[in-house]
Amino acid sequence: MNLPLIFYIVGWMLNTEALFMAPSILVSLICGESCSSLLLSALICLGCGAALTIRKPQNRSFTLKEGYLSAALVWIIMSLTGMLPFLLSHSISDPVEALFEAMSGFTTTGASILSDIEALPHGILFWRSTTHWIGGMGVLVFLIAIIPLFGGSKMNLMKAESPGPSITRILPTAKETAGALYKIYIGMTLLQILLLLAGGMPAFDALTITFGTAGTGGFGVLNDSCASYSAYSQIVITVFMILFSINFNAYFYLLRRKWKESLSIEEVRWYLLIIAAATAVIAFSIRDLYSSAGQTILQAAFQAASIISTTGFSTTDFGIWPVLACEILILLMFIGACSGSTGGGFKICRIVVLVKTLGNELLQYIYPGSVRQVRMDGKKTEDSVRRSIHVFLAAYVMIFIISVLLISITDHYDFLSNFTAVAATIGNIGPGLGEVGPASNFAGYSGFSQLVLIFDMLAGRLEIFPVLLLLYPAAWKRF
Amino acid sequence: MNLPLIFYIVGWMLNTEALFMAPSILVSLICGESCSSLLLSALICLGCGAALTIRKPQNRSFTLKEGYLSAALVWIIMSLTGMLPFLLSHSISDPVEALFEAMSGFTTTGASILSDIEALPHGILFWRSTTHWIGGMGVLVFLIAIIPLFGGSKMNLMKAESPGPSITRILPTAKETAGALYKIYIGMTLLQILLLLAGGMPAFDALTITFGTAGTGGFGVLNDSCASYSAYSQIVITVFMILFSINFNAYFYLLRRKWKESLSIEEVRWYLLIIAAATAVIAFSIRDLYSSAGQTILQAAFQAASIISTTGFSTTDFGIWPVLACEILILLMFIGACSGSTGGGFKICRIVVLVKTLGNELLQYIYPGSVRQVRMDGKKTEDSVRRSIHVFLAAYVMIFIISVLLISITDHYDFLSNFTAVAATIGNIGPGLGEVGPASNFAGYSGFSQLVLIFDMLAGRLEIFPVLLLLYPAAWKRF
Repeated sequence: MNLPLIFYIVGWMLNTEALFMAPSILVSLICGESCSSLLLSALICLGCGAALTIRKPQNRSFTLKEGYLSAALVWIIMSLTGMLPFLLSHSISDPVEALFEAMSGFTTTGASILSDIEALPHGILFWRSTTHWIGGMGVLVFLIAIIPLFGGSKMNLMKAESPGPSITRILPTAKETAGALYKIYIGMTLLQILLLLAGGMPAFDALTITFGTAGTGGFGVLNDSCASYSAYSQIVITVFMILFSINFNAYFYLLRRKWKESLSIEEVRWYLLIIAAATAVIAFSIRDLYSSAGQTILQAAFQAASIISTTGFSTTDFGIWPVLACEILILLMFIGACSGSTGGGFKICRIVVLVKTLGNELLQYIYPGSVRQVRMDGKKTEDSVRRSIHVFLAAYVMIFIISVLLISITDHYDFLSNFTAVAATIGNIGPGLGEVGPASNFAGYSGFSQLVLIFDMLAGRLEIFPVLLLLYPAAWKRF
Repeated sequence: MNLPLIFYIVGWMLNTEALFMAPSILVSLICGESCSSLLLSALICLGCGAALTIRKPQNRSFTLKEGYLSAALVWIIMSLTGMLPFLLSHSISDPVEALFEAMSGFTTTGASILSDIEALPHGILFWRSTTHWIGGMGVLVFLIAIIPLFGGSKMNLMKAESPGPSITRILPTAKETAGALYKIYIGMTLLQILLLLAGGMPAFDALTITFGTAGTGGFGVLNDSCASYSAYSQIVITVFMILFSINFNAYFYLLRRKWKESLSIEEVRWYLLIIAAATAVIAFSIRDLYSSAGQTILQAAFQAASIISTTGFSTTDFGIWPVLACEILILLMFIGACSGSTGGGFKICRIVVLVKTLGNELLQYIYPGSVRQVRMDGKKTEDSVRRSIHVFLAAYVMIFIISVLLISITDHYDFLSNFTAVAATIGNIGPGLGEVGPASNFAGYSGFSQLVLIFDMLAGRLEIFPVLLLLYPAAWKRF
């Protein structure tokens, strides 16, 4: 185990975290609030970071396993330090709840334990939304740029092993790939901010809502999430929730002016098709609730895009929608966004391969002699990819079941609440239904249950395997 | 496609059905009720059966596909004729509801649309319970004796292909195997009847409840299911629900005095372990609801055994239990019984292989060089078996999701009701939770939703693939 290098990476991330607290300090100063809690938190991060990065490690070799373990560590330690502003400013007094909020931010979940968001100082709210933006960027780099370098990623990101478009084939080094990802991410962020400002949204809201959209996080700054923004702003947010949850390969192609390739990525086409279908069914289900067809479709599209992109903003309390609409949303919670995006969930590419595999097996019953291949983007997917998706599914289901049971020990919420609370955290979405619906929050759960949900957020964000590896002591012992 | 042989089999089953209506006619006569509806139904079955069996088919060759299709046909046609007594006696006036009740009987589900069971004539109630007993026997013969003969059963019954104990290796021919299965099934049925009679249960109840237990069906003859029977009777029923849902290989070994082999079947050991663990957690969850520890454990064990064995009897309205107990029951709905038994659900052997496969994949991350095998009963399971289990899981989940959405279009029950209604029908259990809990029934669903649930019962009973094949027209065309 190359511990010096892992510590070095963690230290470097702590320095970055301290740097990202600077804008929030600035917001505090502009709004005439005390910035002491943020300043102290930044100094603590910087101190720890400096201590860990003072010596460059000699050995730069790094296995996939070490990559997994360091990613899990980075998310945990950034959340432990990222919760300091909440604690020090007394915005959140309970350490578990503060950790919940910080982990929810960095994993771009957006589930909150706060009942009155508007009561928080602007600087703290700005930091809360910044964690989404950092988290989104971290996911992009970790899942797309770093992991495929090791050739492994068998379990993790199917794209890397699948014969479909892969970024590592477009750009040769991790540094270049990460650089291009940053450019796209920052460019799209700026564009959304400008569009929201153009629609008359206050600058503070435009920035924080954009951070929440870019990371597909979902922390807002108003108690009603996005309900009181204009229809124009809601449409902009809907479009960008979808844009940030599309496979970023599409943008790589666009940058290189390969229009045709960009439009032909199978995962993206399925994704848009599912969103359109879900919007149609939800609109059908809620047709009697809104006065105009436009309003009905906007409500349906916003909520569908918000849940499937795993953002979690809301423009209405969809918890009171008819059961068919709610069930579509629950289904979208499990499907999740495209691979190679900031979104979470089970991922479209895995779902598509699963469905195609099933179809093939059935066809082989009917035409026994024939050999059929599961194809993605016109190329054959390998057996190992399919097997890893099945194992991923099994692991996902098992963590899901155990979590639902665990949060039922100390709490007595109903089945719908427990079921969607876990779905919304392991899928990195945010709000669930019932007691954890968009009009409510996760404060009602006990500290024990909140710890379980914190684990789920982390497991979902890192696509399960790094976290399981972290729990398994032999992974540490042997290397 | 060997249609003459398929028709011959269907005809033979209709004759058998007519024969099985005789005891119900006798019960009608003893109770001084009109037996005209049962007599007419029996004559219709006999007429159709005689017409179909008048000519023996020349070609006796039979493929797995034809086996699948004929099994699906047999269950459908027996349900269509089996519902006649309900309709003709005006016990159930709606044809869809009558079909629901008959399909629920033959698939050994036990879900009912009747709100006042006790209002029905004894003869009709006896026929209703008899369908469970026929269904259980049919499942045993179809899944254990017939399918493995074709060497196929890749998807269907993992046991046949797995290297574990298989009945076809113990007895050489299908006829002998089926004969031995009948002997065990009838012997255990008689034993339960005697034990219930010894406890003072009325003969009518002892017979019908035993039929419901043997088929792991769940139709009772009292409105409160088994709540008003004595603790002794409830214990006997609990034990026999477990006995009938254990892999029948255990009894084959017992008959041959191979005590050690009988006790060492891995699937059975896991099954008993899961029941014990579920009982313990449920007892912990409901500890404040009952006066004595004995009563608490009996309630927990009865409901756990009833749900996991996919019987569906109840001794209490477990719908009002704390959420943890309800969630354990929902989980048991999906797990289901042992393969090679009359029970339904996902089946223990599949769950065990899934869990072991996951464990292996994780270990391979930690020790990359090593090659690990998934073993069942000490023998390696083949890749094709594992893949078929994964496909089975995917198909199960997809049918489940589509069904939940379909029954939400015309009905507005809550998520818990819809979710458990489908779980209870596809798992062949019977009662769900919420609006379809043990204190309620399925009459509230629309005819459309009931048809969806009828399909689920059939799909679950035939382990999905035969039914999908039936829906796929090419399966008919080509052969």
